[in-house]
Amino acid sequence: MLPLIKDLLTTDPSGTKDGLEALVRGWVRTKRDMKNLVFIEVNDGSSFANIQCTFDIDSHQETAPVLAQITTGCSVEIKGRLIPSPAAGQRLELAAGEVRLIGDAPEYPMQKKRHSLEYLRENAHLRARTNTFGAVARVRNRLAFAIHQFFQERGFQYVNTPIITASDAEGAGAMFQVTTLESSRGDAEARGGIDYSKDFFGKRTSLTVSGQLEAETYATALSRCYTFGPTFRAENSNTSRHLAEFWMVEPEFAFAHLEDDMALAEDFLKHLFQTALKDCAEDLAFFNERVEKGIIDSLHKVANAKFAHLTYTEAIAELEKAVSKGRAFDFKPFWGCDLQSEHERYLTENLTGGPVIVTDYPKEIKAFYMKQNDDGKTVRAMDVLVPRLGEIIGGSEREDNLEKLEKRMTELGLKPEDYYWYLDLRRYGSVPHVGFGLGFERLVQYVTGMQNIRDVIPYPRAVGLCEF
Amino acid sequence: MLPLIKDLLTTDPSGTKDGLEALVRGWVRTKRDMKNLVFIEVNDGSSFANIQCTFDIDSHQETAPVLAQITTGCSVEIKGRLIPSPAAGQRLELAAGEVRLIGDAPEYPMQKKRHSLEYLRENAHLRARTNTFGAVARVRNRLAFAIHQFFQERGFQYVNTPIITASDAEGAGAMFQVTTLESSRGDAEARGGIDYSKDFFGKRTSLTVSGQLEAETYATALSRCYTFGPTFRAENSNTSRHLAEFWMVEPEFAFAHLEDDMALAEDFLKHLFQTALKDCAEDLAFFNERVEKGIIDSLHKVANAKFAHLTYTEAIAELEKAVSKGRAFDFKPFWGCDLQSEHERYLTENLTGGPVIVTDYPKEIKAFYMKQNDDGKTVRAMDVLVPRLGEIIGGSEREDNLEKLEKRMTELGLKPEDYYWYLDLRRYGSVPHVGFGLGFERLVQYVTGMQNIRDVIPYPRAVGLCEF
Repeated sequence: MLPLIKDLLTTDPSGTKDGLEALVRGWVRTKRDMKNLVFIEVNDGSSFANIQCTFDIDSHQETAPVLAQITTGCSVEIKGRLIPSPAAGQRLELAAGEVRLIGDAPEYPMQKKRHSLEYLRENAHLRARTNTFGAVARVRNRLAFAIHQFFQERGFQYVNTPIITASDAEGAGAMFQVTTLESSRGDAEARGGIDYSKDFFGKRTSLTVSGQLEAETYATALSRCYTFGPTFRAENSNTSRHLAEFWMVEPEFAFAHLEDDMALAEDFLKHLFQTALKDCAEDLAFFNERVEKGIIDSLHKVANAKFAHLTYTEAIAELEKAVSKGRAFDFKPFWGCDLQSEHERYLTENLTGGPVIVTDYPKEIKAFYMKQNDDGKTVRAMDVLVPRLGEIIGGSEREDNLEKLEKRMTELGLKPEDYYWYLDLRRYGSVPHVGFGLGFERLVQYVTGMQNIRDVIPYPRAVGLCEF
Repeated sequence: MLPLIKDLLTTDPSGTKDGLEALVRGWVRTKRDMKNLVFIEVNDGSSFANIQCTFDIDSHQETAPVLAQITTGCSVEIKGRLIPSPAAGQRLELAAGEVRLIGDAPEYPMQKKRHSLEYLRENAHLRARTNTFGAVARVRNRLAFAIHQFFQERGFQYVNTPIITASDAEGAGAMFQVTTLESSRGDAEARGGIDYSKDFFGKRTSLTVSGQLEAETYATALSRCYTFGPTFRAENSNTSRHLAEFWMVEPEFAFAHLEDDMALAEDFLKHLFQTALKDCAEDLAFFNERVEKGIIDSLHKVANAKFAHLTYTEAIAELEKAVSKGRAFDFKPFWGCDLQSEHERYLTENLTGGPVIVTDYPKEIKAFYMKQNDDGKTVRAMDVLVPRLGEIIGGSEREDNLEKLEKRMTELGLKPEDYYWYLDLRRYGSVPHVGFGLGFERLVQYVTGMQNIRDVIPYPRAVGLCEF
């Protein structure tokens, strides 16, 4: 397989007399003419940096007619020699000898000028060819692989939990229905309702909102597992922070308690940020300069911080103290309320000056499966909060006591018999176990500084939006 | 993070006087009593092998009452010393000192006796605790990570193509509809049809059958990319070979021709088989002995073979020759027919005795986007066929000529304007590019020898089947 531009740019031609022979293939970003010299910047998406290909027309007159046809967006193949570059800002350039125009690009919609993010969203099929979205794609790729590496190195096994489901997991949100019922549907409804026994699966089915419950069945067999797959919310939220389809990472970890969950989450985030800082340095430098000033520094800070721990009760006390000292919140904090983004940011940015893990939330604002504390009021939940964003990870120790879990389900109006298989994990060899969820797009946003979540997934889906 | 049983079993206590202190946590597979000795086999899913924990009741009388309560399926925590084992078939065992029963397992449905695969399918939430399904889970995990490693090492970037889509990709199969329309649907139908403008996305949407077209938009920006995500078919096929929801791997590779695609597919399969043979040796030994005799040998053969190349036309000629020599096929081969499984197996098992890549299929039996040969009859498709299975990979060079692609789409009744974004890749800097698809469950079946595809995915979805 031929070297990519990122490989060419890291070679060392210093020992050679006339440079290293190289073949460059990619898309033209810019072309500049300067008397008898022509400079073409080529990018192949493997790195942020282009490779500059310099043509000396005097010694390669046969290239002139081809060069005349080349414009931004064209695909080209250029042969030459890699040599140290006299130009500033680049170590190497290609002293070009031959050029072939592969595909032209008349009226190319992605010209050199900076386009608005809205314009690029409308051209999502071409936006990965720009600086910004090439960088987002590379960071997203590196983070995805780093997630697998992190878990694989620690004995967590990748599990594919189902996408189409007949259960609603945790009542976590509105669900999309999956169906093959078509024309027969009208008839059925005329008779008073849709007859789901005629549907593909013989019952009403939906797109998953979380793979957690099924992941627990594997964690209590393999000890450690994780999912990394798409999840869905049919919520009518047309904002820059919500997607209808997004990717989620959900580790589950047996023979473990909330303390282990917190340690895992902290190690995990640090590993991801360190990997991005190390392996995506060039892309992050771009985000730092053009998208969100100071983002590199803020990632370093989290990667090197000791995460603070606060119980929810302590957090509320701190927030109330802040209010009494004159801090204004849109939503006044009180014990029992869900923490708002403004509260989370106060805790990280003002109170501790770094990441905070808040634990032991009121059971009323958390899911049925979280392990109950002895106080009868709180559960062993944890949210990991980071500066600039607030919650980035949510997790808990899972209730491993059959009677307590059944009782809680009944209180909440869930039918234990619908969850017999989930309860079986507590009937047969129950173990303390924990897990958490990380929204992958939120992570990519956090690392890149991109403001709109629709800009960190190739083809965003949201209410009223399903293009390409 | 504490060592797993697989870690304990590979430690070396030889330099120590009384063995290495160790803590074992897992689920009890069996318990045997022998006079004053009690043997407990514990498994934590990290390896096929259990660890044998040996209790000498005379020196640890306090363990007797706990041991009396322990049955198959219980979760336990056992402290002791790892020592060389006097028993056959295991290098080490745990000289156990303390034992704690974590969760009991009365009437555990997964007893030591061998259960039928049907029974285990009905208990899919517990089946990963058995030898067979623990091994399937570990092989599946290792193959998934090996796929990422293979592509990452070669500069392919992971891309998440959309799951919910408004296009139908390639007309590859029946699709599931995704909707939030509910009670209003009846009214709309009474008015002569469903009003999709009122649906969540404002149009009719479905679950993807392939991420290829969107992956091409990234390959023509990043040069090399791959998807690995769920795909769906709403086909009414209640067989051991079909799933309604399955995971697919789809690399796309720019500046490449069919020859590059073939080389990539061959390297890819060899890499996967070699990795499984090396890293899942114990699990494969089990499959080789209990599930499909000779499977290890057959994987070695493919991993070391030079893949044969045949054009479709040559393959048909060979099949016709075989017929003329008396070979009976259920479906008589002729130029223009789709190759049947029996044909594919003849080519691999009888003609070449190994893997075969068949290329240049008739355009009528392949998808619209495949690159047309100059003969006007065939396209630059390739199918990789392997012994025991037939097709394991299908791919092609993609048509990179705008006019040819538009003409072919029109011939097939597709509207070019619906695919403007896909055609834009040929309008702006078009490049030769290739790709292929690998059904992940087919791969796991091939490596494990499991006969029913429902046994190689944690929670299978098929017509009438959507449990857990």
